[in-house]
Amino acid sequence: WRTRSRAQILQYILLKWTLAFLVGIFTGITAFTINLAIENISGYKLLKVNEYFQADRIALAFSILTVTNLLLALSSSILVAYVAPAAAGSGIPEVKAYLNGIDAPDILAPKTLFVKVVGSIGSVAGGLDTGKEGPLVHSASCIAALIGQGGSKRYHISWSWLRYFKNDRDRRDLITCGAAAGVCAAFRSPVGGVLFALEEVTSWWRSSLLWRAFFTTALVSVVLQTGIMYCSDGSCGLFGSGGLIIYNIGDVSVNFGLVELLPVVTLGVVGGVLGCLFTFINGRILRFYFALHNNNGPMMKILHVTIVSLISTALMVGLPWLGDCIDCPTDIDETCPTTERSGNFKQFRCPDGQYNDLASLIFNVNDDVVRNLFSVGTANEFKYKSLLIYMAQSYFLALITYGTPVPSGLFLPVMITGATYGRMAGMVMRSLNSGLSELDEGLYAVLGAASFLGGAMRMTVSICVILLELTNNLFLLPLTMLVLLISKTIGDLFNYSVFDQIVHLKGLPYLEEHTEPYMKHLTALDVCGSPLVTLSAVESVENVVDILQRTNHHAFPVIDDDEVTNTHILYGLILRSHLLVLLRGKQFLSSKTMVSSFDSTKTFKPIDFAKPGSGKGVTINDVSLDVNELKMFVDLHPFTNTSPYTVLDTMSLAKAYALFRGLALRHLCVVPKIENGFPIVGILTPFGCNVESFRKPWTWES
Amino acid sequence: WRTRSRAQILQYILLKWTLAFLVGIFTGITAFTINLAIENISGYKLLKVNEYFQADRIALAFSILTVTNLLLALSSSILVAYVAPAAAGSGIPEVKAYLNGIDAPDILAPKTLFVKVVGSIGSVAGGLDTGKEGPLVHSASCIAALIGQGGSKRYHISWSWLRYFKNDRDRRDLITCGAAAGVCAAFRSPVGGVLFALEEVTSWWRSSLLWRAFFTTALVSVVLQTGIMYCSDGSCGLFGSGGLIIYNIGDVSVNFGLVELLPVVTLGVVGGVLGCLFTFINGRILRFYFALHNNNGPMMKILHVTIVSLISTALMVGLPWLGDCIDCPTDIDETCPTTERSGNFKQFRCPDGQYNDLASLIFNVNDDVVRNLFSVGTANEFKYKSLLIYMAQSYFLALITYGTPVPSGLFLPVMITGATYGRMAGMVMRSLNSGLSELDEGLYAVLGAASFLGGAMRMTVSICVILLELTNNLFLLPLTMLVLLISKTIGDLFNYSVFDQIVHLKGLPYLEEHTEPYMKHLTALDVCGSPLVTLSAVESVENVVDILQRTNHHAFPVIDDDEVTNTHILYGLILRSHLLVLLRGKQFLSSKTMVSSFDSTKTFKPIDFAKPGSGKGVTINDVSLDVNELKMFVDLHPFTNTSPYTVLDTMSLAKAYALFRGLALRHLCVVPKIENGFPIVGILTPFGCNVESFRKPWTWES
Repeated sequence: WRTRSRAQILQYILLKWTLAFLVGIFTGITAFTINLAIENISGYKLLKVNEYFQADRIALAFSILTVTNLLLALSSSILVAYVAPAAAGSGIPEVKAYLNGIDAPDILAPKTLFVKVVGSIGSVAGGLDTGKEGPLVHSASCIAALIGQGGSKRYHISWSWLRYFKNDRDRRDLITCGAAAGVCAAFRSPVGGVLFALEEVTSWWRSSLLWRAFFTTALVSVVLQTGIMYCSDGSCGLFGSGGLIIYNIGDVSVNFGLVELLPVVTLGVVGGVLGCLFTFINGRILRFYFALHNNNGPMMKILHVTIVSLISTALMVGLPWLGDCIDCPTDIDETCPTTERSGNFKQFRCPDGQYNDLASLIFNVNDDVVRNLFSVGTANEFKYKSLLIYMAQSYFLALITYGTPVPSGLFLPVMITGATYGRMAGMVMRSLNSGLSELDEGLYAVLGAASFLGGAMRMTVSICVILLELTNNLFLLPLTMLVLLISKTIGDLFNYSVFDQIVHLKGLPYLEEHTEPYMKHLTALDVCGSPLVTLSAVESVENVVDILQRTNHHAFPVIDDDEVTNTHILYGLILRSHLLVLLRGKQFLSSKTMVSSFDSTKTFKPIDFAKPGSGKGVTINDVSLDVNELKMFVDLHPFTNTSPYTVLDTMSLAKAYALFRGLALRHLCVVPKIENGFPIVGILTPFGCNVESFRKPWTWES
Repeated sequence: WRTRSRAQILQYILLKWTLAFLVGIFTGITAFTINLAIENISGYKLLKVNEYFQADRIALAFSILTVTNLLLALSSSILVAYVAPAAAGSGIPEVKAYLNGIDAPDILAPKTLFVKVVGSIGSVAGGLDTGKEGPLVHSASCIAALIGQGGSKRYHISWSWLRYFKNDRDRRDLITCGAAAGVCAAFRSPVGGVLFALEEVTSWWRSSLLWRAFFTTALVSVVLQTGIMYCSDGSCGLFGSGGLIIYNIGDVSVNFGLVELLPVVTLGVVGGVLGCLFTFINGRILRFYFALHNNNGPMMKILHVTIVSLISTALMVGLPWLGDCIDCPTDIDETCPTTERSGNFKQFRCPDGQYNDLASLIFNVNDDVVRNLFSVGTANEFKYKSLLIYMAQSYFLALITYGTPVPSGLFLPVMITGATYGRMAGMVMRSLNSGLSELDEGLYAVLGAASFLGGAMRMTVSICVILLELTNNLFLLPLTMLVLLISKTIGDLFNYSVFDQIVHLKGLPYLEEHTEPYMKHLTALDVCGSPLVTLSAVESVENVVDILQRTNHHAFPVIDDDEVTNTHILYGLILRSHLLVLLRGKQFLSSKTMVSSFDSTKTFKPIDFAKPGSGKGVTINDVSLDVNELKMFVDLHPFTNTSPYTVLDTMSLAKAYALFRGLALRHLCVVPKIENGFPIVGILTPFGCNVESFRKPWTWES
């Protein structure tokens, strides 16, 4: 199936772009729906509770809040626990692992998509300290995977054109576009989305993909823009504020001199330290959580979410009492305190004409909290005490929430925590040298957000561009870059990013881009372990079945024996999945001699060997053969990949790894440099490579 | 030299960042110097000439302009013709080719840097229709190359730490950072610079490089910012306008609806068509130019530049007479007509209180032309006639100028041409539906610039971000993306981008990222051509010298012969450069038998085999051996790469190419699948692969 006509190539290209188009459209619509649901549910919830608080019906307010939050969080956790456990967490590590070649079951299944979308509405609207950003990336990747396989096989939706798309690379590319679309949908940042996919998510990047990802994110922003325009007349309830640039502070002048360097560097250092501390503590907590979930049933997950939800609600109701009542500023356009919608100033228990600054942070939807913290020209809106309390709460809740079995994103919690101390730094600067420093507190808050994002997630260019597209303030770019460089450097000195840590904690065999120093001291031969399992080019059916049952290898070397000279030649490599197709097709030979007139290739079409979509696929237990069939032979010649990539056994592991990782291989044949009677020594695979320590040698399949 | 201590690794990492730091600083300073020189020279020139025009001394004005332009252009062309021919053109194709592995002489030599910097000042200030952007990218890459090799060997500047840096990959990475820094310096766009390097320049990208490139561009913008702050009090002559965002139109609101889609799509189509037409015509012109230069001496180059300079000056003086005198608008802050500096309104031959719209475009430095075209709220500043004339002139001059033997960039000419028709489209829209369309003419001009850039250069994300950082208008992003997608698609249907075309016209063996369809139908064996030249593991000096003289291959397979069993083993691959080092070291054996006590590795240090910097290096003619030495033997065992990458001769060329291109190899050994007495069939190299048609099979070295 290497020969395709011109028309087929055109069809293929058209298909690629059509699929990218569909991914963009559907991601945009999904994001819009999620936004609409969250803003309305949690907006009305908070308004109602706020109303009761003002009316002095505190017990009622408290119970309504607790019950609503618990119900929303529970609905999310029940879905995760019983329907799709893969939908827990942010999903970015999983998508990253998938694009690295780890085909974990259910990561991109339709039910995961469903639970992710519904569950993230539940967990965010339910007052847990999570964002919808990570889940959106995962959802968009699921959408891409579903579209790429033409819907789910289980639901009998398929499309014949898609046969060109049944391969790993095209699917991987489409899912990369999906991830970019997800980030774009979350932050309304088309360029940032592409860069995020490039910097954080993908393992293999081609520059043609840059363009397609860009096309997808452009579409997402068009869809979002359309949605926002539609909602701008207030027909979408509480949704609608923000426009295409969520936290627009683009009209603020950024004047900074050398005096700003000190606080900016400090912010970078603080962000780096807090970030790697976060990763460290969260790692311990995650280990505990994983053990808890693995050793107990789904009920434990639900109990877990219940506890976290109750803690969150308790803090939410309890903390605002610590806030002060502050007189409303008189020189602003906004109504103060805001009662009708979530806004800058929350009255809580204060008299009219005053607002509670801590409640303004706590009793708000995430987006409005960030907007409050980033708001410029509001120098005295918050007091140190309130900011400090809120920061501690936010850091603590983010730590215990990330890892609970609900769809939960980490972006916004991290951004909010960072913005809090950033804003405090700005207030300190203003009090120290009134007049000398011209940078607004809101801008310091942006820098603080950047620093914690850099310290926790260790991205640079993409965070920079995402923040740029969120705030629309280009003049802040140099300072943002500086902060990010510092915080990422400090974080990288100590540990992995939060996402990489999850990949490692889950024990996924993630292949890093770079080789490790120890690999230079090993040759391909050194890491040779278990005995090699090979097949003859014409093999008895019984043997094939036996080997497939006995081992769980994914590929087998096929050896051609020349009985005259008694030499063995490595004919090629055959995949387990192809062997299963052959066994199910039952085109067997009665004797071991090759009959040239009998052409088994006619029975099989290329599409039979195409990689199936998500799901487990066929296993050897699905194949039933009778005794006579077991005695027959199968000719593997036509179905073997006759020119697998090979390396010599004397090659250093580092060089072999470079080939393996660079070409995204799953199997690499190791052949002897000096002929010793048998043409293959082993097969190198990514599995068994201990990811946690990166110190144990690779294992050899067969 | 695989074993390095921890301290050495730290030293290496520190070195990488220090070098990136230096590249950023020096690029920033260079860009600042170039800007300062150009703005002042051409600014004062234009002011003076304008003064004479108004004083009715037309002949004097004309002669001053002609002579100044000619002198400046000639100085540039003399430098190029006699000192560094490699400094001609924009340099982006050459840097791109270098990073693809093409080590063309002098591309990144110190003299090229010198000529590029001085020459680009001459050609831009000399009124040729070129920009300084491409040359800046090339200059920055030269700076990176120079810093990477620790200064030039010829000038005896070197540094022992740099021994860790004498390899292809680190040098390539640093030059990629340099290219990013160059773009950042040209457009003051740190993110755009990184993306440009990623999308257009580099062939192998690692995500760790993203971060380092980002660091470099951040430094460049800090240096530029410092320079601009220093100049803001007017101490730098005419330089200083623009700030860090060159064409700031960020404060303009962007309201667009469906009615804008038609003109925007039209702009995309026009840009695509004009772009690929430009590439086509420019290709013809370049072919003619190249023939002209190759068949004649340097004098022809100087004559060539003289003619182009005279044509440019004639158009510059002649065309403004066709412009109309327009009353100065009264509702603006700016002085009109501007006389003291280059600005929006040029009086030319008009009475006081009026300005000549065509002269305002022609009698201005490039940056101010773009600023004029992008200017918002100036709906009736230009008439259709003037814009049309200016567009034709700009298109024509760009066509004949790109390819003249001076440092010349294409970015600004293309941007200006595009902005012209973009602005016209905006004016049409305004006249058609006053009130319906809210988009300003200046924004249409930006979209026009995007469309022509996309059509000619075929980049997407990087142009988008560069335009964003140039104009600081995030709201325009979705429209810019749309325009770029359309224009690039249309352009790609017909031909290569302008940069790729030059790579092809120069016949450089550029390795594309993707495989060509025909490669699937060939095996590695099929493209096997000329006879194989191998060396024995212990080879006579005479043979080595003979082979090095007879062939120009860069690597030779080393065969170990087992004389007992009469079998041959592929011991490894040795590089020509290493053989030359061995011959010059003269550690020969007197007989062919290996003497284990004699260890020739002690004589050589790893640094001896390190890749030298730019320049030709040693050739076989530099090695002088007497007759006795020629009769001796050399043991190649310790110096051979014992585990080269290999492919089987039955592998399809497409798969072999994927390995070759993916791992950035220069040589790939092809070994027989079926043992036929000799362990190697040939070596695959990038040379001889006909780049123009991509249809001729690859050749085999040896």
